[in-house]
Amino acid sequence: MYMDLLAVGSPQDVIEKVAEHLDCSPTSREVAEYFDQHDKLRHLRQEFLFPKVAELPPSDLSLVNGSEECIYFVGNSLGLQPKNVKKYIDEEIEKWAKTGAHGHTMGSQPWAWAENNLEDLMAKLVGAKAEEVALMNGLTVNLHLLMLAFYQPTAKRHKILLEDKAFPSDHYAVESQIRLRGFDPSTSMLLLKPREGEDTLRTEDIVSTIEREGHSIAVVMLSGVQYYTGQLFNMEAITKAGQAQGCYVGFDCAHAVGNAELRLHDWGVDFACWCTYKYVNSGAGGLAGAFVHEKHADTVKPALLGWWGHKLSTRFQMTNEMDLQPGVNGYRLSNQPVLLVCPLQASLEIFNQTSMKDLRKKSILLTGYLEYLIKHYYSRDESEPHKPYVHIITPSNPAERGCQLSLSFSLPIRAIFKELEKRGVACDMREPNVIRVAPVPLYNSFTDVHRFITVLETVLAASIVQHG
Amino acid sequence: MYMDLLAVGSPQDVIEKVAEHLDCSPTSREVAEYFDQHDKLRHLRQEFLFPKVAELPPSDLSLVNGSEECIYFVGNSLGLQPKNVKKYIDEEIEKWAKTGAHGHTMGSQPWAWAENNLEDLMAKLVGAKAEEVALMNGLTVNLHLLMLAFYQPTAKRHKILLEDKAFPSDHYAVESQIRLRGFDPSTSMLLLKPREGEDTLRTEDIVSTIEREGHSIAVVMLSGVQYYTGQLFNMEAITKAGQAQGCYVGFDCAHAVGNAELRLHDWGVDFACWCTYKYVNSGAGGLAGAFVHEKHADTVKPALLGWWGHKLSTRFQMTNEMDLQPGVNGYRLSNQPVLLVCPLQASLEIFNQTSMKDLRKKSILLTGYLEYLIKHYYSRDESEPHKPYVHIITPSNPAERGCQLSLSFSLPIRAIFKELEKRGVACDMREPNVIRVAPVPLYNSFTDVHRFITVLETVLAASIVQHG
Ligand SMILES: Cc1ncc(COP(=O)(O)O)c(C=O)c1O
Ligand SMILES: Cc1ncc(COP(=O)(O)O)c(C=O)c1O
Repeated sequence: MYMDLLAVGSPQDVIEKVAEHLDCSPTSREVAEYFDQHDKLRHLRQEFLFPKVAELPPSDLSLVNGSEECIYFVGNSLGLQPKNVKKYIDEEIEKWAKTGAHGHTMGSQPWAWAENNLEDLMAKLVGAKAEEVALMNGLTVNLHLLMLAFYQPTAKRHKILLEDKAFPSDHYAVESQIRLRGFDPSTSMLLLKPREGEDTLRTEDIVSTIEREGHSIAVVMLSGVQYYTGQLFNMEAITKAGQAQGCYVGFDCAHAVGNAELRLHDWGVDFACWCTYKYVNSGAGGLAGAFVHEKHADTVKPALLGWWGHKLSTRFQMTNEMDLQPGVNGYRLSNQPVLLVCPLQASLEIFNQTSMKDLRKKSILLTGYLEYLIKHYYSRDESEPHKPYVHIITPSNPAERGCQLSLSFSLPIRAIFKELEKRGVACDMREPNVIRVAPVPLYNSFTDVHRFITVLETVLAASIVQHG
Repeated sequence: MYMDLLAVGSPQDVIEKVAEHLDCSPTSREVAEYFDQHDKLRHLRQEFLFPKVAELPPSDLSLVNGSEECIYFVGNSLGLQPKNVKKYIDEEIEKWAKTGAHGHTMGSQPWAWAENNLEDLMAKLVGAKAEEVALMNGLTVNLHLLMLAFYQPTAKRHKILLEDKAFPSDHYAVESQIRLRGFDPSTSMLLLKPREGEDTLRTEDIVSTIEREGHSIAVVMLSGVQYYTGQLFNMEAITKAGQAQGCYVGFDCAHAVGNAELRLHDWGVDFACWCTYKYVNSGAGGLAGAFVHEKHADTVKPALLGWWGHKLSTRFQMTNEMDLQPGVNGYRLSNQPVLLVCPLQASLEIFNQTSMKDLRKKSILLTGYLEYLIKHYYSRDESEPHKPYVHIITPSNPAERGCQLSLSFSLPIRAIFKELEKRGVACDMREPNVIRVAPVPLYNSFTDVHRFITVLETVLAASIVQHG
């Protein structure tokens, strides 16, 4: 129902249309309930274990009902647990107990190639072919393995282009790759800054930087969705611009996978990596992913080799003669832990019940609804200089963001964050200045958003008292 | 009791003394039972889940009693499951279910530094200080991270010394490191071969090679215990010889950790790495280890950096200014999965009930007993050319081996291996020509060894019939 309404306009239009239809205010809880009733993906929430308010350590049960489900808006940091996780893990633990080393090759999930069974599901989520995707290691490890192959600096072309405030691990990774190759980060690291007075990067500025500096750029390495601002980059345009200048273009999709619609293959992205513990719900430190476009399958070879890169059919003949798998499969080094395959499997099976297209449709309305309510209540009002306000640094255009909104406040965020946590909101604070909230279309509801706004109202009222 | 007897002689002496004391043949099952009764570490077997014969897929229940515990001699490939694994994993899964992202910093095992809590126990096992050890990634990944820092070839000193038949992953790792640095494996890879007609390497030959070629060797990189032959190298002597020539000396301790007594710190080993799924029983693909000697804490810097190498106290301020931890801690890249910390913890707590010294004492007798019985029944007998015989390629000197014996046979091994498996023996076959059997002192008994010999007798009798 709302899906069709959505087709006719922006989230704001839809919200107001529904309010009119219900004959209530757009800020009324009825609107949220209406959306939930008509949400075709609503059943997916049942596939997850939802923490109760009382279980969250910071909850203050004198302020909030502990028996309710919490407002879990921190799936951008750690996704909720799919209900099948325990079942799948128990199966493998039992197999280990009962058959020992035989588990490597026996059972429904032989450990020696368990992750390979998931790569087609994973590939769907990032818009890739199964053979372009490997599940292995942690994210930063994969970023390094890919950069070692794709970053081949020369005196003329030695730069890596990245965001000024990239995620620290990516920043350190790039810095150290440049040093490893004998170059100097102060001249080889090209950092993209937003314009003066702006919070996020304009695609036109990214593209023009690439056009201007492209001849000296070896690799463009941006995130898909920026962890701090929540900005979704135009990966297609950036890839095209970079490749037109002869650069390789790679993305860290940590915050994009399971959040935005990715078409790594169709966009011709050269390489990508991501973790799976955020929107892909695989649990802390879950198995990470890597992508190498098939066009490079026989040309961009991995720099570092291990036995897991050897063709499976002859891997265990132990000849010490490398028969390397093509493409990303050749980048494998170590055998992978089945205990990390299990939760990822449980999550990818849930994704497989829907599509990123449908999730995105819901997501645009869900986050649009959050934005609408925040703007409604907390826009800056020059006529009321003492009224607290919220500034959303995430782009307002749905095409330029995923589900996360990054909020900055006119009041100190530490106190606000603490008060939100006391009231059963799980979100996070990122230094220096934002609270990130991520309503995740896979398991969050419109009612969650409405509850959040109600809590925020109380919290800001309390904060005024404290800081007034 | 036997511990004292052992002090007075070789395993052979002890076995024969006990037989005399019991007034039975040294090959009698009574001897095994006597050893088990007097085994002070016997109770540790109870800490593990022991597979039953009936549960092993290859078992043929017309030939063997399915309700017995199997003869698990493949702990050199995958250790048995400590009983607390499930409990610890369940706790963390429950924490995830109930508190979501809060698990990173809350509970008995906060995920964000869970592995750090195990590093002192791990360090004990390898003879290191806690701050010299990091638990992270897979083994081959760690080998690469260490080599990237320690292998700094120059035109004069560019070689890596390793075994001719090193484990494939190590071989490929070394090969690719050499290529990455612009050298040629055919001239920079120096392979140690046993003398003509011998199966294993002599320490004197390793040392003399180092003395002869040391000036051109950048890194000596051997295994601690050789996976194929079971040979335990004299790491102390090799380290000394290598360092005297100005080489860095590192060891892959995959088959040595939890098996041999290691003193990485005291021996002055420069770096080491290992997996934990073999003798350390952490489950398939478990968290691997890395060691960097404290003397290099501020000098041999990691080549590749990630946010997990940043000091923990300020890591999450996200400044993008690296404040690197000294030593091996700076080599960390990605956050580590708590699901892999749990099984490792369960196992290390068992090790902590004893010491490597006591385990080694038992191990020497246990493997010595296996060797004694094999030699007794299956030595080559020139006078009986048709009698099948077993040749043990593992060194006979207990100081030169861990618990594993590598057996080659006068009959085709495939058939023998298959028949052993049918009869409840879990062991493994390695191309081209050995069956590896590893009685693990932590959970195997002397009776296991005696049962194995009995099964072997039947199997060889059957094989003669088949091939006679
Ligand atoms: C000596 C040695 N090196 C390397 C490896 C490969 O380990 P991983 O797959 O954990 O990298 C093994 C695994 O058995 C090994 O025994
Ligand atoms: C964009 C980005 N890069 C890198 C990382 C680091 O991931 P890992 O610790 O899995 O290497 C994260 C983790 O949150 C991230 O969001």
